[in-house]
Amino acid sequence: MRTRTDVVNRFGPVASETISEFERAIRSVRRAGGDPTVWFDGAVREGWDIGGNANGGYLLALAGRAMAEVAGRAPLTVTGHYLAPAPAGPCTIEVRPVRVGRRMATMSATLRQGDRAIIEVLGTFAEQSADEPSLLIDGEPPAIPAYEECELPPGADEGPLPAINDRLAVRLRPGDGGFRTDQPSGRAEIGGWFAFADGAPVDAVGLLLVADALAPPVFNTELPVGWVPTLELTVHVRGVPAPGPLRCWFRSRFIFGGLLEEDGEIWDSSGALVAQSRQLALTPRE
Amino acid sequence: MRTRTDVVNRFGPVASETISEFERAIRSVRRAGGDPTVWFDGAVREGWDIGGNANGGYLLALAGRAMAEVAGRAPLTVTGHYLAPAPAGPCTIEVRPVRVGRRMATMSATLRQGDRAIIEVLGTFAEQSADEPSLLIDGEPPAIPAYEECELPPGADEGPLPAINDRLAVRLRPGDGGFRTDQPSGRAEIGGWFAFADGAPVDAVGLLLVADALAPPVFNTELPVGWVPTLELTVHVRGVPAPGPLRCWFRSRFIFGGLLEEDGEIWDSSGALVAQSRQLALTPRE
Repeated sequence: MRTRTDVVNRFGPVASETISEFERAIRSVRRAGGDPTVWFDGAVREGWDIGGNANGGYLLALAGRAMAEVAGRAPLTVTGHYLAPAPAGPCTIEVRPVRVGRRMATMSATLRQGDRAIIEVLGTFAEQSADEPSLLIDGEPPAIPAYEECELPPGADEGPLPAINDRLAVRLRPGDGGFRTDQPSGRAEIGGWFAFADGAPVDAVGLLLVADALAPPVFNTELPVGWVPTLELTVHVRGVPAPGPLRCWFRSRFIFGGLLEEDGEIWDSSGALVAQSRQLALTPRE
Repeated sequence: MRTRTDVVNRFGPVASETISEFERAIRSVRRAGGDPTVWFDGAVREGWDIGGNANGGYLLALAGRAMAEVAGRAPLTVTGHYLAPAPAGPCTIEVRPVRVGRRMATMSATLRQGDRAIIEVLGTFAEQSADEPSLLIDGEPPAIPAYEECELPPGADEGPLPAINDRLAVRLRPGDGGFRTDQPSGRAEIGGWFAFADGAPVDAVGLLLVADALAPPVFNTELPVGWVPTLELTVHVRGVPAPGPLRCWFRSRFIFGGLLEEDGEIWDSSGALVAQSRQLALTPRE
């Protein structure tokens, strides 16, 4: 029987044979010493990229997991600023405690490949308060058909899917994958289910990946936007997801000045909102 | 005739007799030397507080202005994490360049009073691209009656207004100030016009203040939320406002787990969106 005998804590390294593909992909190893600044050695893993550059949510999770280990708490609100694209390869993560309080801990971090800064992150970490009442829920899970009725990203004959698609079991709302086959829906929206291909549960760190895991909503318009490099991504984690796929919905409302915003909501299988996200991205022409 | 002969640059110190109350309130003086880290000496000024603690948007602008001076560019996306309340008094701002590129510059900063960290900030700075086309505007300025038809914060006999109200000429949408007189609208929304009391124009740094200048939308509900300390505030600056008051609209949709989010839109007098904001705040009981 495989056991997790080498678990350091819930965010620390665990035996590779018992952990999920995602946990393995965001592992990094804390160097001895380091007070107050803590260094981790890790790697941007193969297979979490779009065209050779790592997905932005994956990079946020890679840095965020190390920050959570130092904080000893789960991500609550995390902001990443993207400085350079990241190919697969070794990286370091420098985590600097900003303030460690009784309930909250604020950390900043820099993820680097060699001397090259890839992403700068600022986050506050805390355990969720499950005993606090629910006072106002002005919204509901996005209207998305059952997981089985949703689409695999269509159009593999239109060109290879991004590598990250092999790690995930995303299913899109019917029609929302139309941009892949030159049939965009016409709305700057994309909805669907998120799950890991290996069936692993999604924890608070995983939500940082989910917040950037679907294609940009702008792809479902006829606008001349060729790619959408993220400048900044902020994720509010509002709960730990119940087991099962997550309902996700992303929308862009303001595309001008060479920039767009993208807002996201992530709901779990029990119908609870578990994260909100917003990013600011560039909109280069094709 | 008064002139701005001692203007260092658009973000630097200017002669105090020619500048606005807000510019004076967010001034700080760069220490000689400092490479790459730059230190500023400034102060949390009297009169920008609620009950003795400085407004969160004011603190973000105070740090953001110093960061913009080092970046030599205007704020584009700025996130502050609030670590401790700030009474009036001297402060330092430590600005650390993270990456300075051709178009964008990313900076982190810590605003301290003595040894006490007050706010940690991460921001990317850039000039807006006015020549980029407007591709999608899915929204419009909030429906708010003309400035003259809107309300001063009512109910001065219900208790003193926060000191910051004397610096501002905010006018609320009729009904949205009802919480002051025990007549909340019942909706977690607040809309109104923002202007400085001295008529000064609002620039990109000023928008960081505007994003937190109205009362929390939750006050317009019957919920048992006594105050709303901000944990994190992110502002996307999407344009430099045209002259005139700004139409603002803030809403909370998800109040649970001892936390709420607050989303904001700020539109200028020409009908252009100039900023979006989102904050995560605590919801202590009364």
